[in-house]
Amino acid sequence: MQRCRELAQQAIGKTSPNPLVGSVIVKDGEVVGEGWHPGAGQPHAEVFALRAAGDRASGSTLYVNLEPCNHTGRTPPCTEAIMAAGIRRVVVGMIDPDPRVAGGGVERLRQAGIEVTVGIDEAACQQLNEAFCHSILQQRPFGILKYAMTLDGKIAALTGHSAWVTGPDSRAWVHRLRSQCDAVIVGGETVRRDNPRLTSHGQSDRNPLRVVMSRQLDLPEQAHLWEVEAAQTVVFCSEQHSASRAAKLAQQGIEVITLPALEPREVLQVLQGRGLRSVLWECGGQLAARAIAQSCVQKVYAFIAPKIIGGTNCPTPVGDLGIGKMNEAIGLTDVTLTPIASDILIAGYLPSSVSGLDQ
Amino acid sequence: MQRCRELAQQAIGKTSPNPLVGSVIVKDGEVVGEGWHPGAGQPHAEVFALRAAGDRASGSTLYVNLEPCNHTGRTPPCTEAIMAAGIRRVVVGMIDPDPRVAGGGVERLRQAGIEVTVGIDEAACQQLNEAFCHSILQQRPFGILKYAMTLDGKIAALTGHSAWVTGPDSRAWVHRLRSQCDAVIVGGETVRRDNPRLTSHGQSDRNPLRVVMSRQLDLPEQAHLWEVEAAQTVVFCSEQHSASRAAKLAQQGIEVITLPALEPREVLQVLQGRGLRSVLWECGGQLAARAIAQSCVQKVYAFIAPKIIGGTNCPTPVGDLGIGKMNEAIGLTDVTLTPIASDILIAGYLPSSVSGLDQ
Repeated sequence: MQRCRELAQQAIGKTSPNPLVGSVIVKDGEVVGEGWHPGAGQPHAEVFALRAAGDRASGSTLYVNLEPCNHTGRTPPCTEAIMAAGIRRVVVGMIDPDPRVAGGGVERLRQAGIEVTVGIDEAACQQLNEAFCHSILQQRPFGILKYAMTLDGKIAALTGHSAWVTGPDSRAWVHRLRSQCDAVIVGGETVRRDNPRLTSHGQSDRNPLRVVMSRQLDLPEQAHLWEVEAAQTVVFCSEQHSASRAAKLAQQGIEVITLPALEPREVLQVLQGRGLRSVLWECGGQLAARAIAQSCVQKVYAFIAPKIIGGTNCPTPVGDLGIGKMNEAIGLTDVTLTPIASDILIAGYLPSSVSGLDQ
Repeated sequence: MQRCRELAQQAIGKTSPNPLVGSVIVKDGEVVGEGWHPGAGQPHAEVFALRAAGDRASGSTLYVNLEPCNHTGRTPPCTEAIMAAGIRRVVVGMIDPDPRVAGGGVERLRQAGIEVTVGIDEAACQQLNEAFCHSILQQRPFGILKYAMTLDGKIAALTGHSAWVTGPDSRAWVHRLRSQCDAVIVGGETVRRDNPRLTSHGQSDRNPLRVVMSRQLDLPEQAHLWEVEAAQTVVFCSEQHSASRAAKLAQQGIEVITLPALEPREVLQVLQGRGLRSVLWECGGQLAARAIAQSCVQKVYAFIAPKIIGGTNCPTPVGDLGIGKMNEAIGLTDVTLTPIASDILIAGYLPSSVSGLDQ
C-alpha cells in the first residue's frame, strides 16, 4: 500500500478534480504490474497496472489506495476492468468519499466473487488525498495557509519590507508546495507591495492557477502576475471595481470575475465549480483571518526564521479573528515540526469548520 | 569530564557569583573521589573530591571542568590543595576567564611538576558556565529573554489576556529555568496586568531575586511579588517615582532602588555589583526590545504554542528595535528545537553585543 501511495504521488498537483491513485498487482509474491493515475481524462491507476500485468493479472491480488470506481466518467469503470482481468483479491486503502462511488465499487467487486479487503494503511491514504476528500465532502477546495515569520512573530518590517524572512531552502520548499496546489491566492495588497510571481520557480513543470482578490482592482499596471505565459491568473473583484482596470486586465489575458461579495468563501465556491481541489493562501494577515473565520483554511504551514526584527506595529501572520481570550485560541492538531536548513516548519490542521468567529 | 559537568550541575542556580564546578579523581582507572562546588563561601569542587579520595589521591589524575583557582578568596587556593595531595596529573575543561585566575592556576600546577592538560570537552564546559563567563568578561549578567507566543506570533489577546499561551509542561520548564537564574526581571505593566509570582513554583527549593522596573511606581498595592516570604523582590524606579508608593513598598519589605536612568543596562550594572551572574527577562515586548538594543540579552527561549488567536494589534514578543529591513533582522546562532508536550521551544543566542540599534 505504501508503494501505491508512492506511485500515486508521481502525479501530485496534476490530477484535480480527480484523486491521487496508485495501484500494484502482485502474483505469487511478485509485483507483476504497477500504475498510477496521471490526470483527469486519462485512464485510472488500476488500468495502467492491469495493462502492465497483462495475462499475469489472472488470479492475482490488486492493491490500490482508493476504492476502484464503479461508474462511467470520462473513462469506463475500473471494477469492470478488474473483473475482466480475473483478479482474485483486491486490497483497498480507503473507500472513495465521492458519492458516485462511496462503497459501490467494493460492493460490485464482492458481488462478482472477488475477495475485497478495505482500510489498509487508511490514515496515510486519507492524508494523501486530504484535499480531494475535503473538497468532495465540503464542496469547497481544501485550504492551506502558508506564512513565514521571524522568531518574534513578524512577517515583514514596519516598512513592509519582507525579502526574505526565510532562507532559500524554505523558499524552494514553498515553490514545490505551489506546484502541488491547484491555486495560490493573494490579496491586492500583496500584489502592490511584493509583486510576487507565485509560480513553482522551476521546482516543477507545473504552476498553480494564480488568484488575486482585489475589491476595486486598484492594482499595478505592470506586475509579474500579469505575465500569463508563466501561469494563468484570475482576478476576483467586487461590483465597485474600476471598469477601465478590468478592461486592461482582460486585454492582458487575465480573467476578471466580479462577485457580489468578495469573500474567501465565495471565491472558493467558484474555484470548486471549476474542479479545483486545493488552494494555497499566501496572503497577508487580514485576508488570512477572513479565510480562517470562513472555514476556508484547513491546514497551516508556518515557517519560522530564527531571527528577531522587533516592531510593535509590524504585520503579523493572522489579523483580527475576534478572539478575546487566550484559552479561546484555535488549537492545531497533528502538529509536525520540520527543520529546513536554519528555518523551522511547523505544520498542523485547523478544525474543518471554525465556529463562533466573526465573519 | 562529562561526569564533572554532571556533578557541577548539582548546584545549578546556587553558586553565583561563583561558577559551576565539578571534579573527579581517578586512580588506576577507578574513580576514588568526586565533588562539586555547592555555593559561594563553601569549599571548591576539587577540595570535596580530594577529601573523598583521601590517601588515594596521591599519584592520581584529577579532572575538573574549570581551571583550579590560584588565589585566596573566601577559601584557600585549590592549586595548593592539589599539590599537597600529591596529584600527578590534572585535566582541565577550560581556563577560568576570571582575571584573578586566567591561566595562573594551570601555570602554578605546571611549575610544581604536575602534568596539566587543558581544553577537554571545552565547548560543553563553556556552555555550562556561559553566564559566569559572560558576566566576568562583559561585567554584566548574562541575559536570557523568555517568551511564549501563539503560532501566529502573539503573546496575549488584544484584551491583554494571556493565561495561558503554553501548556503545563512548558510552564513547569520555565519554573525550573527560574530556579537556575539569579534574577527574573519584569516591567510594571506585567505586574499590573498579570500579577505574576515569578517563583520556581516548587520545581526547586530555590527562587530567583524578583526584579521590577517601574518608572513612577504606579504599581498595585496588593501583588504576589510583594509577598516576600516566597522570594525577595527589588523594584527599580526613576527619580520621578511616587515617594508614598516607595515608602509603602519599603514597609512591605521590598527594596526600592532609584536610578537616574531607568534602563536595562543600568539595572544590570547594579545586579552585577551584587554578584548576580544571570537574569531572566520575562517582560513584555517594549522592555524586551530595550534590553536587546542595550545588549542585555544573550540567549532567547521562545516557546511556541500550536494555536492561532489572530489580532492585528495584539502584543508580540519584541517591540521596536528600529530595524527597517527584513535582511537586517538579528540572526540567532546555535539554534535548538525542543518539543515540550504540544508546545515547541526554540532556543538560540544573540550576538553578545548588538550594534547599530536605537537605544
